[in-house]
Amino acid sequence: MCNHDSFMNQAVELSALALTNPTGGPFGAIIVKNGEVIGKGNNSVSTNNDPTAHAEVMAIRDACKNLNTFQLDDCILYTSCEPCPMCFGAIYWSRLSKVYYACTKKDASDTGFDDDFIYRELNLEHTKRKIPMIALDKEKAIEIFQKWKEKQDKIDY
Amino acid sequence: MCNHDSFMNQAVELSALALTNPTGGPFGAIIVKNGEVIGKGNNSVSTNNDPTAHAEVMAIRDACKNLNTFQLDDCILYTSCEPCPMCFGAIYWSRLSKVYYACTKKDASDTGFDDDFIYRELNLEHTKRKIPMIALDKEKAIEIFQKWKEKQDKIDY
Repeated sequence: MCNHDSFMNQAVELSALALTNPTGGPFGAIIVKNGEVIGKGNNSVSTNNDPTAHAEVMAIRDACKNLNTFQLDDCILYTSCEPCPMCFGAIYWSRLSKVYYACTKKDASDTGFDDDFIYRELNLEHTKRKIPMIALDKEKAIEIFQKWKEKQDKIDY
Repeated sequence: MCNHDSFMNQAVELSALALTNPTGGPFGAIIVKNGEVIGKGNNSVSTNNDPTAHAEVMAIRDACKNLNTFQLDDCILYTSCEPCPMCFGAIYWSRLSKVYYACTKKDASDTGFDDDFIYRELNLEHTKRKIPMIALDKEKAIEIFQKWKEKQDKIDY
């Protein structure tokens, strides 16, 4: 069995926990660095009361905790399903180098999850979205951004 | 001062913590239900070693913990900046009813954050993305989805 298959199998085994020991939906993910698994996650939305506890997010948080960092350069994610927009964002913010996935967002949709719908919503005008997003006055907020730009001793991420 | 201004001011005050007591970037968010603040968050990426610890995600986790739920129906998010794709996804998964924001994703980009870039990446073909996303065989993973569909005693989210 090649490494890809072996790593993906581990992610899929984590997804299968939803059938026997459910903490959320049937999704699993692992993170690999230099051929070693450094983070694992399975969907834990319902037991953690955390709608952000998707498998990829859980694996990213686990890997970051294990490596004591908030950036996962040179790390690869294996996930049992194509990431939803939330996990897509988390992958970019954590600076993973590559993602391998098994099921697609269409498969997730067919199984009752909103992934594909959320992808479509992203491209709608703000006020036409199912959850409307409305701009308010930004005068005070943008002052903070300006002060942040001028700040010397900041940690970038 | 109208309610909107008062709630947005609270979100912006949380964003300003990044200048005086930094835990991450200059972003703040609150969640309101029936006129009452039920969750708060400010970006805590660097101190938490958690790249998913954006203000909106922190506020959603806080509100869910306080209400002992993973769904925030009839709740409104006030955020000092337009949500990035990760937070956008988190907003949909948590079923918030509405979002008010101050700064835009373009303002975030101009301040050194990748929000706008990640929005553009979402619409690229998978292999053309800066972080390539590659499909592997899904035979085993889709079996789990199939079994999930047939499962009777599951918690939907």
